[in-house]
Amino acid sequence: MLRRSILSAAFRGRATRRPFSIVAPRGASVGKERPSDSQSKVFGFRETCFRGYNGFHGLRYQIYQDGISIAEKGPDPFSLVADELSLLANRLRSMVATEVPKLASAAEYFFKMGVEGKRFRPTVLLLMSSALNVPIRESIADGVSGGLSNELRSRQQSIAEITEMIHVASLLHDDVLDDADTRRGIGSLNFVMGNKLAVLAGNFLLARACILLASLKNTEVVSLMATAIEHLVTGEKMQMTTTSEQRRSMEYYLQKTYNKTASLVSNSCKAIAVLAGQTSEVSMLAYEYGRNLGLAYQLIDDVLDFTGTSAALGKGSLSDIRHGVVTAPILFAIEEFPQLREVVDRGFKNPADVDIALGYLGKSCGIERTRELAKEHANRAVLAIEALPASDAEDVLSTRRALIDLTHRVLTRTK
Amino acid sequence: MLRRSILSAAFRGRATRRPFSIVAPRGASVGKERPSDSQSKVFGFRETCFRGYNGFHGLRYQIYQDGISIAEKGPDPFSLVADELSLLANRLRSMVATEVPKLASAAEYFFKMGVEGKRFRPTVLLLMSSALNVPIRESIADGVSGGLSNELRSRQQSIAEITEMIHVASLLHDDVLDDADTRRGIGSLNFVMGNKLAVLAGNFLLARACILLASLKNTEVVSLMATAIEHLVTGEKMQMTTTSEQRRSMEYYLQKTYNKTASLVSNSCKAIAVLAGQTSEVSMLAYEYGRNLGLAYQLIDDVLDFTGTSAALGKGSLSDIRHGVVTAPILFAIEEFPQLREVVDRGFKNPADVDIALGYLGKSCGIERTRELAKEHANRAVLAIEALPASDAEDVLSTRRALIDLTHRVLTRTK
Repeated sequence: MLRRSILSAAFRGRATRRPFSIVAPRGASVGKERPSDSQSKVFGFRETCFRGYNGFHGLRYQIYQDGISIAEKGPDPFSLVADELSLLANRLRSMVATEVPKLASAAEYFFKMGVEGKRFRPTVLLLMSSALNVPIRESIADGVSGGLSNELRSRQQSIAEITEMIHVASLLHDDVLDDADTRRGIGSLNFVMGNKLAVLAGNFLLARACILLASLKNTEVVSLMATAIEHLVTGEKMQMTTTSEQRRSMEYYLQKTYNKTASLVSNSCKAIAVLAGQTSEVSMLAYEYGRNLGLAYQLIDDVLDFTGTSAALGKGSLSDIRHGVVTAPILFAIEEFPQLREVVDRGFKNPADVDIALGYLGKSCGIERTRELAKEHANRAVLAIEALPASDAEDVLSTRRALIDLTHRVLTRTK
Repeated sequence: MLRRSILSAAFRGRATRRPFSIVAPRGASVGKERPSDSQSKVFGFRETCFRGYNGFHGLRYQIYQDGISIAEKGPDPFSLVADELSLLANRLRSMVATEVPKLASAAEYFFKMGVEGKRFRPTVLLLMSSALNVPIRESIADGVSGGLSNELRSRQQSIAEITEMIHVASLLHDDVLDDADTRRGIGSLNFVMGNKLAVLAGNFLLARACILLASLKNTEVVSLMATAIEHLVTGEKMQMTTTSEQRRSMEYYLQKTYNKTASLVSNSCKAIAVLAGQTSEVSMLAYEYGRNLGLAYQLIDDVLDFTGTSAALGKGSLSDIRHGVVTAPILFAIEEFPQLREVVDRGFKNPADVDIALGYLGKSCGIERTRELAKEHANRAVLAIEALPASDAEDVLSTRRALIDLTHRVLTRTK
């Protein structure tokens, strides 16, 4: 019963975030996420849980497999927007470089290639801009369709830039908050340069993002990005200040994950659509893509914190659990081994408790079920793209394939 | 020559910030701030420098005296908006109280009466709202004048609220930045509760301010407040990362002071006017009032850091100079005693250097000239109010008198 109630709470949690149902294809009730339906599907998986994650089958996997098969024919999603990404990176770099050197080196720290990887968020947003490049009735009627396209693209690039600035600002401030001494294998900025500069550099990026946002002069877009900023803060707050009960709650975990990771990419995806003058239906599909991609991304992140590049437990950095942050794999494991709960409640201040938790996690289906949940979200992201208005323009089709490909890469990434 | 060049740079610095000349009454060229003109006026004062500050005479003082005589007939400016201030304080308090207790106590820390004193910024903004309550041609033509007044007032209250949130957020983050262990006699939040919570609480307030700002759906107002946020960051950056030359520059000091203190109150005053649909001329008068009041406030703050409640040097907290922050009194003293420059260049890491600097300051007119500069700005603030469109409505007149009274209180305050 406990297991059931936690799971249904988890799904209720996600359902309440989703103002628009997109996952109801072929007459199925999947998108409505009725607890009984969701539970039977997840329990269906649980009963066939293996060490690997090839035990999954059913409708959604089929959809997902279709996604992969389409995507595999397409080019590398990052290469489609490589030129624009490079321009964006240069703009961000020169923006910080025009400031005093001390601050420039501080803010540039996170803009270097290799630290932030492939600029995931700007890539998604630039691909989304092209994927939504379909005629809109009203703008054609006004005769403004063709002439505005360059200006529109430039405004959409600004959203990508604003989003990256907000993201990097949150990393800088999170480093102060977490008192982390490493982030992604490199000494964190506050460790290298002190809390003072990390706070200032983060504020500097946030302020520049606000200025650029204001210059777009679109109140709905301002509101979307302000919401994303607020969610980042709320998410951090939810992580910092939890009761024991909240730390054990899947609903709380998913809400925190939405706030900390998925809200920024989902609201910025929606902003891309809003700037293009798309209908509210299309804007919500863009939002749903971003939201589900973001959740899938974070769920896999949580798995990799335990497994690292290998499939073996304990090979990851274990930084979450060592900081007392409880993520999906452990929450699923508690359902199978209720005795793990009291270990979690002790807060992992004692390193021995980390080993005990890893022992239970290894015996459980926690890792597999987390991957499974990530796949569900990836499937929903694919469905959102497939529900976009039809187009036969090659750049629209190729960028939509690339967005679907990204959902695959999120699931299979190893770092 | 050095003295002249520093002073002219100082005035050039202010002149470039001022897009609109309001200080050119009765055919005088004062408002244009030609270096030769400004210098002669300041040198005119220097030659009659006393320990007190009753050595000042001339046109501006006359204007200012008029200001005081008008103001002294009026009621306490704070009492005019006491009910609204109390509502605003309650809204801010309940906003933080709806969050988890840990964060609520963190953010509420700065909202308690006694810490933030009399809520200076919201008072200015609510008074400005009433002071600008004059008929506007366009809105009368549209027939929207009367019906909107309640809604307008509520939107102007939101600006007061947003401004206070931004201000408190900057205090919270400045405490982390400065690693200050005390602020206004009370242990700073980061000392009491840690950097983590101070950063988070500041971000929380900034995020809420962004959400409230977005809800006003006015792109010009968003832009004004985003500019104020950016200036706060730039000002903090200017203070943290200076060359020796910058630390000795009056121009740099005034620019930093505008960014750190005057920009928020000036841009929010302008936002009050913009929301009311006022002309750009009236909006700029509101901006000029806020800018000059803010500069006067900070200049007196810099004096009080040396004198405290008494007129005697060394009775203040000396927190600026002990943190190596060089303010107007010392900059003026350097002009009289160039040998003070090398003491300043050593950065006041050695407490003996603070005593040496105080010795030079005592022999100089630094304190008096700083008060004098504050008076000049207070006069300009008065002139901005006097230049507003005529009105015979009693509430308009009484709030204008209160705004003029505030400039007096800023000059005569002892804490």
